[in-house]
Amino acid sequence: MINKLVKKIKKTKAPIVVGLDPMLSYIPEQVQTKAFLEYGETLEGAAEAIWQFNKEIVDKIYDLVPAVKPQIAMYEQFGIPGLAAFKKTVDYCKSKDLVVIGDIKRGDIGSTSAAYAVGHLGKVKVGSREFRPFDEDFATVNPYLGSDGVQPFIKVCQEEKKGLFILVKTSNPSSGEFQDRLIDGRPLYEHVGEKVAQWGEACMGEDYSYIGAVVGATYPEMGKILRKVMPKAYILVPGYGAQGGQGKDLVPFFDQDGLGAIVNSSRGIIAAYKQEAYAKFGAEHFGDAARAAVEFMREDIQSALEGKAV
Amino acid sequence: MINKLVKKIKKTKAPIVVGLDPMLSYIPEQVQTKAFLEYGETLEGAAEAIWQFNKEIVDKIYDLVPAVKPQIAMYEQFGIPGLAAFKKTVDYCKSKDLVVIGDIKRGDIGSTSAAYAVGHLGKVKVGSREFRPFDEDFATVNPYLGSDGVQPFIKVCQEEKKGLFILVKTSNPSSGEFQDRLIDGRPLYEHVGEKVAQWGEACMGEDYSYIGAVVGATYPEMGKILRKVMPKAYILVPGYGAQGGQGKDLVPFFDQDGLGAIVNSSRGIIAAYKQEAYAKFGAEHFGDAARAAVEFMREDIQSALEGKAV
Repeated sequence: MINKLVKKIKKTKAPIVVGLDPMLSYIPEQVQTKAFLEYGETLEGAAEAIWQFNKEIVDKIYDLVPAVKPQIAMYEQFGIPGLAAFKKTVDYCKSKDLVVIGDIKRGDIGSTSAAYAVGHLGKVKVGSREFRPFDEDFATVNPYLGSDGVQPFIKVCQEEKKGLFILVKTSNPSSGEFQDRLIDGRPLYEHVGEKVAQWGEACMGEDYSYIGAVVGATYPEMGKILRKVMPKAYILVPGYGAQGGQGKDLVPFFDQDGLGAIVNSSRGIIAAYKQEAYAKFGAEHFGDAARAAVEFMREDIQSALEGKAV
Repeated sequence: MINKLVKKIKKTKAPIVVGLDPMLSYIPEQVQTKAFLEYGETLEGAAEAIWQFNKEIVDKIYDLVPAVKPQIAMYEQFGIPGLAAFKKTVDYCKSKDLVVIGDIKRGDIGSTSAAYAVGHLGKVKVGSREFRPFDEDFATVNPYLGSDGVQPFIKVCQEEKKGLFILVKTSNPSSGEFQDRLIDGRPLYEHVGEKVAQWGEACMGEDYSYIGAVVGATYPEMGKILRKVMPKAYILVPGYGAQGGQGKDLVPFFDQDGLGAIVNSSRGIIAAYKQEAYAKFGAEHFGDAARAAVEFMREDIQSALEGKAV
């Protein structure tokens, strides 16, 4: 799957993943109203609004980008109907040949991580049959529990040719509280990065490992160091746009050839119609606004990367 | 909710939480067969088997213990039907007046943690209405992202009078890989423990804070230190029984009066009928075996705690 991701990044010239994190407040009135008319102001109604919103966004951007990243929390908050909309979204994106990164940030002790791994990336057995309950292509994983919490995910990835992005340095303001603390003179995130590199050695695709890392766009200096600590890890970079990261901040996360990183934007794309720059589209054409925002982001990143090459 | 938990622990004399982590391999043949006859060998069939198994266990133990802890991964691995069985289990346990600790180990950046918090502990808005999607009483939370990943959970707990158990030192063998690394001369878990104590100050119940901690039974020496670092935090102690912890190992987690900690056992109780000690019950009477295992565990802990008092 890492090979497919890299191939699609080369083809689209867009190292971009669109975060499908649909808060209800992002979803235009007309989409919500229609869903509520059909299902009422219920969890089912919210789930229908999310699904219709996602579908329109995906239809408008699937040819421009290699991947999407639904954030499961935004679905889970609407209970079972919300999670059904998550699954529907995963399936629809895959039918459009998008690589789907499940942003689930799971992580537990061994046997429990194994359950998450089969549920999200693999197959679960029921009697004599097997099912793929969520079936994302990649998943994000929290490393706090150490190797035996991560290994069950790696095992499933090896079997299924799928992949992980492991939290190393997150994009939020207080990520440094624990992640930046010095251990033997180097911050915790570097130690985690080293483990990611180790774990990834047994999981090589053509040029990159399918065990990648999450490093926030909001910390470019740390990205520069981590790029070296984990030379074969693809880096998933959240925090562009709404969280404050800009094209020029992204350069350190990439290798010289413009590969090695994929940048996430969620609100900046899916709720682009709410920004002044895209207001001309109006809430009616929120999908076209999202498309325009992807095109802008692609330019922003490409020109920053070309600046690097010069 | 922390007051209710403490009150129920005093009443039952059992600082025990039963982990409802039903792997299919724990569920007796006759329960599986019946579920598969009705729903086929499908995710729905697995979910029905889990639900019927849980119901029998809960019916047999609800008067003996204060709380249960369903591990959501064991349900999530069966997709949407599995998660529906999780919700059904939460509701049923609450109808039996059990305190329900959702072992979800979520944790993300602020806005995303907020979505998990409302989904699991609070209310989510849909149009003009509000819903409680999962509605557990407590949730477990991963601290790797720092304060702004935890605060949204705390906010919902303050509004709802609910609570958290934050991962400090986990019970698994490789938990030390990051958690034990020294920062300014003290291990990471102590620094996390200090934060838990700080976060908990603004969240006091009668005697304990409703912001608690997870510390594995497999590390009693660390439990002793953490008991002092977080004097007002209730400690949820996994790792008893199947993971290797014994009654005598638990003493350091408790205060002198036998409060301050609650010990989880999952497999050791729900799959007790598979152990030699409870084989006489047979798979037919797995619920009675679970009840006997709870009674043994209560004795084991009480005599260890009395040994402490002497």
